[in-house]
Amino acid sequence: MIDLYTWGTPNGRKVSIMLEAIQAEYRVTSINILNNEQFAADFLNISPNNKIPAIVDSDGPNNEPISVFESGAILIYLAEKYGKFIPSDPVKRVQMLEWLMWQMGSFGPFLGQAHHFNRFAPEEVPYAVQRYNTEAQRLWGVLDKRLSNREFIVDDLSIADFAIYPWTARFEWQKIDLTTFPHVKNWMQRMQSLAAVQKGMAIPD
Amino acid sequence: MIDLYTWGTPNGRKVSIMLEAIQAEYRVTSINILNNEQFAADFLNISPNNKIPAIVDSDGPNNEPISVFESGAILIYLAEKYGKFIPSDPVKRVQMLEWLMWQMGSFGPFLGQAHHFNRFAPEEVPYAVQRYNTEAQRLWGVLDKRLSNREFIVDDLSIADFAIYPWTARFEWQKIDLTTFPHVKNWMQRMQSLAAVQKGMAIPD
Ligand SMILES: N[C@@H](CCC(=O)N[C@@H](CS)C(=O)NCC(=O)O)C(=O)O
Ligand SMILES: N[C@@H](CCC(=O)N[C@@H](CS)C(=O)NCC(=O)O)C(=O)O
Repeated sequence: MIDLYTWGTPNGRKVSIMLEAIQAEYRVTSINILNNEQFAADFLNISPNNKIPAIVDSDGPNNEPISVFESGAILIYLAEKYGKFIPSDPVKRVQMLEWLMWQMGSFGPFLGQAHHFNRFAPEEVPYAVQRYNTEAQRLWGVLDKRLSNREFIVDDLSIADFAIYPWTARFEWQKIDLTTFPHVKNWMQRMQSLAAVQKGMAIPD
Repeated sequence: MIDLYTWGTPNGRKVSIMLEAIQAEYRVTSINILNNEQFAADFLNISPNNKIPAIVDSDGPNNEPISVFESGAILIYLAEKYGKFIPSDPVKRVQMLEWLMWQMGSFGPFLGQAHHFNRFAPEEVPYAVQRYNTEAQRLWGVLDKRLSNREFIVDDLSIADFAIYPWTARFEWQKIDLTTFPHVKNWMQRMQSLAAVQKGMAIPD
């Protein structure tokens, strides 16, 4: 049994999509980050950076429970455990890691800053709005190019797609006009047609 | 032979430290990001997100050349190829991935924003200065706690240490007082005593 500690945000949904895709038996616990539940001592024990998502797999290595934090680490852990959504070809495996890291290091944190300055900051900060919206356009351009001649990020559906999709789904918060990025738009439609994506995006409800 | 495309920044130095640590045969090409060399078509072919570092390994899978971008992907690629600085114990391997992802997703991008607003932004942006310096303090606190009872991030020296160290070395740009984080300070001294760290931090010269 896998316990998923999550909240209704892109980083949480990467993992709920994956859990649906591998059809894992799992249980959801909401960590309401608006109420600072991510700072509770029990949660910090499994997620020392006070962020969702985190999982506890009762059936980890050596049949012992294991906890995992950081969505990218959770995705690799699950992909390797279930042998799914991770390429077995070594060249494609490297490509998957490249784009997963790109999501973790850029397409998450910088779009997150765009969300903050476009929607949540208590004051107008024109310099930062401009900085992160410009970066959002650049990042979407990089992704559009990657998808211009591929069905999925690494040809076959992988955890790289699961990591990237929930961030694209918030395109409006990033001031992104989807018609400018037609290859991402088509890929988003392919993603949205998957039952695992539909179910995973609705967690927690 | 490995070609390293880099510049004198924390993300580049993660990889030069690793190449020194595994004693790989490698050759350095400087990509001067102040001159926009990261946008040259040849470089974009191997690093489509227009960032250093990137590598080309002439001896990749199936004895064919392979290129890798994103420092986190390069570190995993090299660690797996050389079988070094990556734990073989599955539980520790997960911990290594957690902290590598933590570096990629938080301890890099947010400290990078602190660098930008403390030193490089052409105007004073008080809200952003405050936001990213507060986050820097929080992140250093998380790291200090992790290192409070360990020699290295995952007990034995690993790519997680190589990923995190170059970012701590720029503590002054992050308005960090090292005496506040004694466990990180001691770990930094352990890291600095390693020849691979000394050599890797001096690349490119
Ligand atoms: N790099 C982390 C980022 C996780 C993250 O930013 N989580 C946010 C919600 S999307 C959070 O828990 N924020 C609460 C807080 O920062 O206190 C990952 O990918 O897991
Ligand atoms: N997530 C990337 C970040 C790399 C990165 O930010 N590189 C910077 C220098 S430290 C760069 O090349 N900047 C040039 C640019 O953004 O145009 C990694 O870890 O490799």
